[in-house]
Amino acid sequence: MHLSRRHFLNMLAAAGGSSLVYNASLAMDFMSKDAKLTSLNLPPANDKNKSIVILGAGIAGLATAYELEKAGYNCTIIEASHRAGGRNLTLRHGDLVDELGNPSICNFDDNHELYMNCGPARLPGHHQRILHYCKALKVPLRIFANSNRLAYLHDSKNFGGKPVRIGEHMADGRGFVAELAHKSLTTGQLDAGLTEEDIAKFKQFIAAFGDLKESGLYEGTERAGSTVDRMLFHAKPKAPKSLTELINSPLFSRLQFMSEAYDWGEPLMTPEGGMDKIVDGFMGALKSPVILNAQVKSIYQGDNEVEVSYVKDGKVVKHKANYCFNNIPAHFMSGIYNNLSENYRTALGALKRGKLFKIGFQMKERFWEDEGIYGGISYTDLPVTQIWYPSNDIFGEKGIMLGAYVWGNEQNEYFERMTPKQRLIVAAENGEKIHPGYAKYIETGVSIPWSRMNHMMGCGSRMSEDDHKKYFSLLQQPDGRHFMIGDQISYHPGWQEGALASAENALSIFSQQVGK
Amino acid sequence: MHLSRRHFLNMLAAAGGSSLVYNASLAMDFMSKDAKLTSLNLPPANDKNKSIVILGAGIAGLATAYELEKAGYNCTIIEASHRAGGRNLTLRHGDLVDELGNPSICNFDDNHELYMNCGPARLPGHHQRILHYCKALKVPLRIFANSNRLAYLHDSKNFGGKPVRIGEHMADGRGFVAELAHKSLTTGQLDAGLTEEDIAKFKQFIAAFGDLKESGLYEGTERAGSTVDRMLFHAKPKAPKSLTELINSPLFSRLQFMSEAYDWGEPLMTPEGGMDKIVDGFMGALKSPVILNAQVKSIYQGDNEVEVSYVKDGKVVKHKANYCFNNIPAHFMSGIYNNLSENYRTALGALKRGKLFKIGFQMKERFWEDEGIYGGISYTDLPVTQIWYPSNDIFGEKGIMLGAYVWGNEQNEYFERMTPKQRLIVAAENGEKIHPGYAKYIETGVSIPWSRMNHMMGCGSRMSEDDHKKYFSLLQQPDGRHFMIGDQISYHPGWQEGALASAENALSIFSQQVGK
Repeated sequence: MHLSRRHFLNMLAAAGGSSLVYNASLAMDFMSKDAKLTSLNLPPANDKNKSIVILGAGIAGLATAYELEKAGYNCTIIEASHRAGGRNLTLRHGDLVDELGNPSICNFDDNHELYMNCGPARLPGHHQRILHYCKALKVPLRIFANSNRLAYLHDSKNFGGKPVRIGEHMADGRGFVAELAHKSLTTGQLDAGLTEEDIAKFKQFIAAFGDLKESGLYEGTERAGSTVDRMLFHAKPKAPKSLTELINSPLFSRLQFMSEAYDWGEPLMTPEGGMDKIVDGFMGALKSPVILNAQVKSIYQGDNEVEVSYVKDGKVVKHKANYCFNNIPAHFMSGIYNNLSENYRTALGALKRGKLFKIGFQMKERFWEDEGIYGGISYTDLPVTQIWYPSNDIFGEKGIMLGAYVWGNEQNEYFERMTPKQRLIVAAENGEKIHPGYAKYIETGVSIPWSRMNHMMGCGSRMSEDDHKKYFSLLQQPDGRHFMIGDQISYHPGWQEGALASAENALSIFSQQVGK
Repeated sequence: MHLSRRHFLNMLAAAGGSSLVYNASLAMDFMSKDAKLTSLNLPPANDKNKSIVILGAGIAGLATAYELEKAGYNCTIIEASHRAGGRNLTLRHGDLVDELGNPSICNFDDNHELYMNCGPARLPGHHQRILHYCKALKVPLRIFANSNRLAYLHDSKNFGGKPVRIGEHMADGRGFVAELAHKSLTTGQLDAGLTEEDIAKFKQFIAAFGDLKESGLYEGTERAGSTVDRMLFHAKPKAPKSLTELINSPLFSRLQFMSEAYDWGEPLMTPEGGMDKIVDGFMGALKSPVILNAQVKSIYQGDNEVEVSYVKDGKVVKHKANYCFNNIPAHFMSGIYNNLSENYRTALGALKRGKLFKIGFQMKERFWEDEGIYGGISYTDLPVTQIWYPSNDIFGEKGIMLGAYVWGNEQNEYFERMTPKQRLIVAAENGEKIHPGYAKYIETGVSIPWSRMNHMMGCGSRMSEDDHKKYFSLLQQPDGRHFMIGDQISYHPGWQEGALASAENALSIFSQQVGK
């Protein structure tokens, strides 16, 4: 079934209101060839709608303030933490690691190349909104190594428990699938209405896809590397690994499509010097006050205003504004007095906290570069899940590696239960299995369990499928003068692009309301 | 058949002499986990073998001089061109474009971000030798975008002649191959001794590989992108393209394994500011004289010396040395008087000139970034073959694109026949098919037909399979005191790593000879 563009937009309008049409229209255009980046064109502020309070200086809050300020609104941002940025957090020498009950100071060396992106770390080319702001705020970007075929897959239960270069796995995966597909054509399984000539071409294509022999069999490929020096001899392909072992390795399956995921397709980018250069960009551009260390206690809306109270330096402060954009993690809202509608509050309660855990190690040597690894990720079935190598400062003296990148609930809780020191010890032991000698390079480390970080206590919100159907579209709309924003109000939690889409959606509805 | 390491090395020793064993031994170690970069440990120079003449200041010549100078040899480098580097050529504002009969000056703006790598442009992590020298010479490297799923495949005879995002093709290719493979398993084609349980797992794996429906069919995937904004709605996969069209597009087949090639596996790197930073590194480190504008006329070896004559400033100069390392393109050797053995001269004659053609355009705006493209390559069946987008200076004002990257003989000759101006016009017209409006962004351009560039007249040497069997191992050995080097004396012509491997091979033989 192929819908015309107009038909599609009409369907959306029937389903979700005109603001959604606005956004869908943008989205359909983006990937077309002539698309330009979003321009909101907010209506200029007038006396009746002049003041805005923004709760939370995460990426959605900062972008909302930036756009409203440009249109002449009187904005105030209230932030609970000692810093702006939310999960856009880059740790360097001397920074506070603000974990509940475990405060500590990051003691990486004082060097601008030694930093850890604790939240977002990579930007794909189709995340138009965050890239738009990088351009507008003059944040220098660099190409970032995400997948690396020379990094390792380490499966403790397969391949002898030894790390294997990812490129070998990729090549074998393609080879075995292609061999089966080729067999299917040879035995006449295809009923797709192809001619004899087409089938011959399809076979050629499949053979090239998997680097099959003329027999149609996969017997290894140079794509996996060579057992002799390819510069001085004819390359000799490595032998394929055991098919049984491959298909019994859960990691192997996952690996085969990691870099196929739309958000992880090459090339990725990252701001030079740390992801928080984006936060610096917003903070440098904003003239509106950003009140830090200010915890919101209540949100009440009347007919013409919203009154927010917050605690700052032990005192309760009241702040009134015509509208409120609320970037506070939804799971905190049950502890904030408010008069939002009952339905809306139920919807907020259905947004559950996700988890993410990272460890950063300062390594005294860049030992991975001696193994041919320059940036990218190794995968393991051990609790640390992933190890990331830095893309910056190649051949530098030292480097910050991610010693863990953990998204599974169980593995997160495993690390959350430990003291920060214990976490580093376990991650060092895990790392030894992938890089023997790993532990001896570690100079210092830091752990970030996002579901234990003050003022955040979660990462990448979750909603059951049922709740999503019932409540999500409600949260994409304002409740009176109160607009909920943040990556939590997007289909892409855990990504800055989701946060910015929520802000854009809220602002486009706002512009229709105040423009009336 | 699995050979033991010792057995393998013995076989090589029988086949090719001890110097080959040395190199193979290095190669087998490299990709193991503990490998360190090559260290040649040349014997120190003594009175009898003190002086070396190196012909050609390409990468192999420079590295040879660097190593021999370190060991205390008295080196002289003789170079025909006005500059060192050979095909490691980066053009900037004001540089001479030294084409036979068509000399011109590059008039890119005077800006360090506006440059064109006319020869090598990218370094994979397993090219240990060139990376070793980047580290030793303190050449800063950056991650480089090579494949880009948001760039285009443009096939004028398929897909309506319209450019299609590469990611869509990649996803469809995997999907259709996986669907066939799944069918093969369902109908019991597999006789690989797998259990029922294994087959069930294999099916799961294949479904994940191609993002198949539960039915085992491929009906499109989010990996190809979405027709609605994925941030604000559930993603809706694009519909797959016609299988018939896909398998009838030669470009489609090639594309599916471009980034699978071992030398193009992510991540690639490049020196910041241009590939010739490596040449600058060598030139800054070398104390030996590099005599430019000096064309070699003859090479005669006697019992203890080699005498080279060259023309400089219209005068013939004779230069004597104990050994000669010859980095001159082999196809020039028939015009240089020499007393190399007859066999060796025949072997040199069997090395044929390859071709490569590039165009660089200075674009007044980075229009591709508005389309979500940040670095990487688009492919077309038009003569320009490839279009490269710059990885550096993202969001800068202007950029240097490669408007053509042509390796086919026929397409090379097509461009070679034209004037430089005509070439740019054709490339602009080709570009319009991929990016409508392309031509209006062009401010200036330059074309590099390597087989017409003075002192080079070719790129990526070729040898017939027969000749290779007959002659190649001879060229990997010295003829008396004369060692042939360069990427031409490697299994990897056209890559700096091949050039360096030839130098390493020659130097390891030399070290055995003079160490006796």
